[in-house]
Amino acid sequence: MPRGPWTTTQSRIAYSTPRFSVYEDEVTRPDGTAGEYDWIQTSDQVRVAVLTGDHVLLVEQYHYLIGRTLQLPGGNVEDGETAEIAAKRELEQETGRRDGRWTSYGRLAPLPGLSPIYTHLWLVQDAVAGTAKPESVERDLRVVSMSLPDALRAAYDNKIGCAASAALVFAVAGGLSA
Amino acid sequence: MPRGPWTTTQSRIAYSTPRFSVYEDEVTRPDGTAGEYDWIQTSDQVRVAVLTGDHVLLVEQYHYLIGRTLQLPGGNVEDGETAEIAAKRELEQETGRRDGRWTSYGRLAPLPGLSPIYTHLWLVQDAVAGTAKPESVERDLRVVSMSLPDALRAAYDNKIGCAASAALVFAVAGGLSA
Repeated sequence: MPRGPWTTTQSRIAYSTPRFSVYEDEVTRPDGTAGEYDWIQTSDQVRVAVLTGDHVLLVEQYHYLIGRTLQLPGGNVEDGETAEIAAKRELEQETGRRDGRWTSYGRLAPLPGLSPIYTHLWLVQDAVAGTAKPESVERDLRVVSMSLPDALRAAYDNKIGCAASAALVFAVAGGLSA
Repeated sequence: MPRGPWTTTQSRIAYSTPRFSVYEDEVTRPDGTAGEYDWIQTSDQVRVAVLTGDHVLLVEQYHYLIGRTLQLPGGNVEDGETAEIAAKRELEQETGRRDGRWTSYGRLAPLPGLSPIYTHLWLVQDAVAGTAKPESVERDLRVVSMSLPDALRAAYDNKIGCAASAALVFAVAGGLSA
């Protein structure tokens, strides 16, 4: 099967865990040489910038792999969900916010050389406040309300450790001030 | 071993490919329940925003997993390299640019739930022009010079598909106009 200047001769799942699968594809590369391309299939992600007045809500949490960091509310697109449904579910679980005006900021590939997944991004304005219902494994999750200039500074200082969250904070702060 | 509110009881490599390893850790989660945390170890990444006057250099390439997209020059940190050495090597390979004034924009985690890796970011000004030496598998790589406003628009339109590249374009464009 051709994929642009690449050709996939064979594609097989070499290993799977509950969260992702490892593919090992036999390929012909753009320079005509034969080889293997190993990659990861897993679920798409969502991140949401929800504004409350001139503030944005961030979540602070200890991440098993990288330690404590800030990111925007979000998570995995579960089986059977669209990205938008997942974003609404995650936003309400983590912050209690729901409804409001949703503006898509598209999608970005977190690791385009390693996985075809995307992180889907939204800006939400005028959301309704409610009660957060974090999953029990997220019991150390803390919601932090920051002014947009403070969130922008946190992104520049890498206190927002997640790449898609930082990109969306930069995009929203730049877009609203433009 | 404690990791914040998590505890790692056991950590083992369950599967490896030439590019990454799959770990399956036995953990105790923040809510006290026992479980498994499966994750990926692979090389850190680098992305560089090199300015030529008021333009920034992007590379357009067909990605095996996500198709044709723009991103900033960069790639993997190879064994034995620091992130900065990798960034200088990738920038010169892909664009021919070298030297100049390097400003660190820190690092972002592309998929903090799945891998502990970081993408390290730099702004480079006043670099010296030279001859690009792309690897033969990157023979379809094309360098594109864009004004900062055009690059910003490409980031908003998701034409810059790589999350870390988009974040750095937003950060640099916002930082220079501030």
